[in-house]
Amino acid sequence: MRETSAPILPELPLAGHGGNLFAARRAYPQAPEPWLDLSTGINPYAYPIENPPPESFTRLPQHDELCALEAAAHAAYHAAAVAEVVVAPGSQAIINWLPRLVPARCVGVLGFTYGEHERSWAAAGAEVTIAEDFDELASKDIAIIVNPNNPDGRLVPAADLHALALALAARGGLLIVDEAFVDFVDPSASAVPQMAGQGIVVLRSFGKTYGLPGLRLGFAIATHDLAERLRAALGPWPVSGAAIAIGSKALRDGAWLAASRARLMAQGSALDDMLAAAGFTAAGGSVLYRLARHKEAQIWFERLAESGILVRRFAAWPEGLRFGIPGTDADMVRLRKALGLAPKSQTGR
Amino acid sequence: MRETSAPILPELPLAGHGGNLFAARRAYPQAPEPWLDLSTGINPYAYPIENPPPESFTRLPQHDELCALEAAAHAAYHAAAVAEVVVAPGSQAIINWLPRLVPARCVGVLGFTYGEHERSWAAAGAEVTIAEDFDELASKDIAIIVNPNNPDGRLVPAADLHALALALAARGGLLIVDEAFVDFVDPSASAVPQMAGQGIVVLRSFGKTYGLPGLRLGFAIATHDLAERLRAALGPWPVSGAAIAIGSKALRDGAWLAASRARLMAQGSALDDMLAAAGFTAAGGSVLYRLARHKEAQIWFERLAESGILVRRFAAWPEGLRFGIPGTDADMVRLRKALGLAPKSQTGR
Repeated sequence: MRETSAPILPELPLAGHGGNLFAARRAYPQAPEPWLDLSTGINPYAYPIENPPPESFTRLPQHDELCALEAAAHAAYHAAAVAEVVVAPGSQAIINWLPRLVPARCVGVLGFTYGEHERSWAAAGAEVTIAEDFDELASKDIAIIVNPNNPDGRLVPAADLHALALALAARGGLLIVDEAFVDFVDPSASAVPQMAGQGIVVLRSFGKTYGLPGLRLGFAIATHDLAERLRAALGPWPVSGAAIAIGSKALRDGAWLAASRARLMAQGSALDDMLAAAGFTAAGGSVLYRLARHKEAQIWFERLAESGILVRRFAAWPEGLRFGIPGTDADMVRLRKALGLAPKSQTGR
Repeated sequence: MRETSAPILPELPLAGHGGNLFAARRAYPQAPEPWLDLSTGINPYAYPIENPPPESFTRLPQHDELCALEAAAHAAYHAAAVAEVVVAPGSQAIINWLPRLVPARCVGVLGFTYGEHERSWAAAGAEVTIAEDFDELASKDIAIIVNPNNPDGRLVPAADLHALALALAARGGLLIVDEAFVDFVDPSASAVPQMAGQGIVVLRSFGKTYGLPGLRLGFAIATHDLAERLRAALGPWPVSGAAIAIGSKALRDGAWLAASRARLMAQGSALDDMLAAAGFTAAGGSVLYRLARHKEAQIWFERLAESGILVRRFAAWPEGLRFGIPGTDADMVRLRKALGLAPKSQTGR
């Protein structure tokens, strides 16, 4: 059976990922329910789902349906003609498969970032370096960039990504761009529309953007050869019927995406004000989360947890906390109170 | 984008798997709707699902929920204390991962059987032999047995499986037992309850037994080391929230399983009579499907398809057809008619 991740800081449930609400509940049993989970970068405004049709459960996912879903993603991501889309049960599945499909010894990950890339390549036996600088990456077999970066939002221009991919491809290398948080950034930020040839694979997350991480849906965008290897690895029925039904519809709904972005921007701006007022220093972020630093970040983590609010902290950086965007006014009021701030003035509406 | 599998026999949509209804519809556009899909070994009596709670979509699957699901499977499969259960998005995902986690050169698959094991190991570079005889397997690095076998139902006694596993383990080898169709056989047929040590991994399918293949849920049962490697490969969120919610409930419902088995046995017996009357020779099967042979099997395949009934055929064996169990009386009547049989006498009820 599974065992709980060992705590890295003593007496705190420091899991390797955000979103571990059940562990938080065990560690802070006195905290008021329901918990407010701000520990992930998941959209609090979930795409409105109708219940999937019964056939999405009772029959095997159809080849044609998978093709249609990949075509919907191809269009939504403005993918270049040369690019192929591969559907997966979450982009995490692709992160785990890539080291088995692309032989490589020297891997560079532009840090400080999401930990699963390093873990996955190291588990496959590669020598992984966390690069502090973009220019260090050109000498690697495999370079990995989370773009925009999680947690600080650092954004490498798409042109620089393509130049790096070209350099790596010339030596048989590969650039992996994890665009899990690009959907709410300007479309020109993505490497997908200008993808020209081999040497680059881009990962996209469905669950974070559409607020449906329990669906397990993500995509890789690559040129033909790598796309075929990924498809073979993921098998003939890679995702659930519900993921196909809901994903195919949501990816065609540009209006929902735009409206969701506007709400997130407004809430994010209110969150910025609140964190500043509580003495945090802004340290970056993206439309779906904010990174903030505070000398007493660990004390704040605990204080928030005692109020039933879970945020994300980092073993390697004890002064940093990442806040997801509170979805409702009630969530904002609750966070404001837990941060020790006076109720917001109602003047001026 | 995906491409359709190339037909192996001319002018017939011979996909690599059953269940490809959309392709059948394209190939036989005049066939009456709805199609009756008898091309899979999936239970026609789907476990009755309530719609999964919204949180199963809107938050990440929780570690604790995955542990509880694995515990439910451990109990349902009467797993030995030493055995650990690993949850996966379908047993196909495990089939694809095993060759990457267990280094091996010489692989033997007890044939004639489900094609994905051979494909997966060959894709990883192993030298795969289709063994005609059980005794050939002991000299391999990896032996693979589908038990009961698909499509003919051949059953290797559990004691023989454990003896083979012991012999393989002594040389660092591994026995893979695919028990996708064991749930409706006597519990003593499974290798899981008597699993004693390393050298064996068992695959179980949830979707076939519970009639919910679109959910994407399956399990591996192995001892600690291999179980840990599989968990790391499948990542922290291997299956959807809906799979967790529905799977955890269904696996605890032994009464449903027994009732479903009784219905399937009765329908299967009626199917046997019908196939015999139509001139087919029984060639084995399991509770979820029947294998039958006929000199004109390819003509029968087409005739059935023209009536909107899809069955499974095999490129390597043109005289064989596999029939899934028709779920309703109406389906039985439809098949009877398509087989050119007179309506069943109503006397004697």
